[in-house]
Amino acid sequence: MEFPPVTPPDQQVHREAVFRHGQLTKPSGSLGRLEELGVWVAACQGSCPPRPFVRPQVVVFAGDHGIAARGVSAYPSEVTRQMLGNFLSGGAAVNVLAAAAGVAVRVVDLAVDVAADPEMPPLVTRHKVRRGSGAIDREDALTDDEVGQALAAGVAIADEEVDRGADLLIAGDMGIGNTTPAAVLIAALTGAEPVAVVGRGTGIDDAGWMRKTAAIRDALRRARPVVGDPVALLRTAGGADLAAMAGFLAQAAIRRTPVILDGLATGAAALLAEELAPGARAWWVAGHRSVEPAHIQALEHLELTPVLELEMRLGEGSGAVAALPLLQMAIRVLAEMATFADAGVSGPVDEPASRR
Amino acid sequence: MEFPPVTPPDQQVHREAVFRHGQLTKPSGSLGRLEELGVWVAACQGSCPPRPFVRPQVVVFAGDHGIAARGVSAYPSEVTRQMLGNFLSGGAAVNVLAAAAGVAVRVVDLAVDVAADPEMPPLVTRHKVRRGSGAIDREDALTDDEVGQALAAGVAIADEEVDRGADLLIAGDMGIGNTTPAAVLIAALTGAEPVAVVGRGTGIDDAGWMRKTAAIRDALRRARPVVGDPVALLRTAGGADLAAMAGFLAQAAIRRTPVILDGLATGAAALLAEELAPGARAWWVAGHRSVEPAHIQALEHLELTPVLELEMRLGEGSGAVAALPLLQMAIRVLAEMATFADAGVSGPVDEPASRR
Repeated sequence: MEFPPVTPPDQQVHREAVFRHGQLTKPSGSLGRLEELGVWVAACQGSCPPRPFVRPQVVVFAGDHGIAARGVSAYPSEVTRQMLGNFLSGGAAVNVLAAAAGVAVRVVDLAVDVAADPEMPPLVTRHKVRRGSGAIDREDALTDDEVGQALAAGVAIADEEVDRGADLLIAGDMGIGNTTPAAVLIAALTGAEPVAVVGRGTGIDDAGWMRKTAAIRDALRRARPVVGDPVALLRTAGGADLAAMAGFLAQAAIRRTPVILDGLATGAAALLAEELAPGARAWWVAGHRSVEPAHIQALEHLELTPVLELEMRLGEGSGAVAALPLLQMAIRVLAEMATFADAGVSGPVDEPASRR
Repeated sequence: MEFPPVTPPDQQVHREAVFRHGQLTKPSGSLGRLEELGVWVAACQGSCPPRPFVRPQVVVFAGDHGIAARGVSAYPSEVTRQMLGNFLSGGAAVNVLAAAAGVAVRVVDLAVDVAADPEMPPLVTRHKVRRGSGAIDREDALTDDEVGQALAAGVAIADEEVDRGADLLIAGDMGIGNTTPAAVLIAALTGAEPVAVVGRGTGIDDAGWMRKTAAIRDALRRARPVVGDPVALLRTAGGADLAAMAGFLAQAAIRRTPVILDGLATGAAALLAEELAPGARAWWVAGHRSVEPAHIQALEHLELTPVLELEMRLGEGSGAVAALPLLQMAIRVLAEMATFADAGVSGPVDEPASRR
């Protein structure tokens, strides 16, 4: 699958927003990262001052992973299917956080290990690729065709949401066992060793941690030879949900729509998306830093500094949604604060107004 | 001024909230600090699940400082008075952040260097102690009587706001030069050396930094002998605004009302409040960690871990207000998420439902 070139956010508007921040009634730079976030949104929107997000959208990419059969998760695989229902009835963490932040939530079944259910809304089921992805320590996650289908699904979902008016996108994940392929993809693309990327996931014990380390080691041995080819890497060590997320993140950039990244699974998909569509990362902000060690590696590789560090490790898009109110605040600061001139407030003593 | 004993938040409700978090449809602990924040609010409110804050209130304590005449700030003292007008017309950073977070803002003139203006609303002026506090490198900031007046003003303001229905309080600061007495108070109470507490404040240059270091050194020499007596310390090296904030923070705890602390000035006031009313800190959460080095010392001494680290250094309550949406989210998670039983979701494999 070929992506067209990514064009960067508007650098002229970026400069205008930096200049405007210097006019507002506060010491220059004193709002720290809030200033940077407001400037970034302005550049993405091509508008200074920027506009508050009115149609932010979370898409949760759900899928099962054959590797779960190796005992790498604290939860049974049936939880993926059960959580799909929980998302649809609004009881999951991301539903509650999104309601608080004014974000809509859509869940999409890419590879949940359940037969197609005609009762399910088409928005959930229309992009399904297969039932579960392969057990990546011994077999491929997907066929080449399925990788193409999953990437195309992610692109189509991004297009659907942007065409429906979404002005900010968040990708979330749900899938028992998905931290194992995510860690493998990150290790492959950043050159990290297996032990440097193994985390506790949903909360495995020491025996589970050893099983997970072995699974990551075996899958990474299969993945290293194809690290230069993103499609082959997703086939060998990915999954339909992770591939769709990668397509979604790349297409968001192509559609010039800003994204807040979430945790480990999104981080792995983001590394792939940056390989598929170089420059896409300029359209993303890192919502938070998860406690998963591989997530830190992914963010460093992408040169993204997280907004929040709250020791979260849930996924679902929860950490990205938690960061959204800060982005909205950053936008409003740039749009609504008084300037020194408007408010009749004096500037710094060493720099009289006539010289600024 | 004597404060009655502080009673801690409700420990039984704390345990109930921790238990409830274990029932919700997510791996235990996976929301990290959001879980801790929700539990803390529940304990403060004595109610599990906790209730979203409906009347949060920021109070900005404004005052001038004689030490500003030594060139310790990048801005002239007249800015304090000018910013008072900016707060009242809604153009300052905290106004915009507070509007985004659903918080009301009140500004109170404790010691702005301006004559009483009959046009000003009484809510702003009724607690005024004096015009500017003393230049603490060579003279006392206040008399003992003025310290008493300022502490009583802070207590009265907390009472006024709680009696008007405030269910969460935030103290902000505005005062050119105020980072110098704040740094001195923190150095005195934590035992830090002058150079360890000198920051750039509003953004001073290297020459200003040297003047500020000298001012802090001289004031600290005057303050060290009275470090065991909070009233004498506020007299020697404080200010009416900082003393009022200390009274406000202590009284919030006595009124069992939770507080989000802001940056350096609030941190200094919080150290004093904890001296005046031991145990008050159990009612406070640290909204953020500012880039001011003395703020870090204050938070460590209070054993408070900041929610945000966004390189902010504005004051006004801005960093505390920025953290409020995360508290509201933490509350809603505990109140609105489905339990494993409600949602029909399986628990961890090693821990069947019958054993939990």
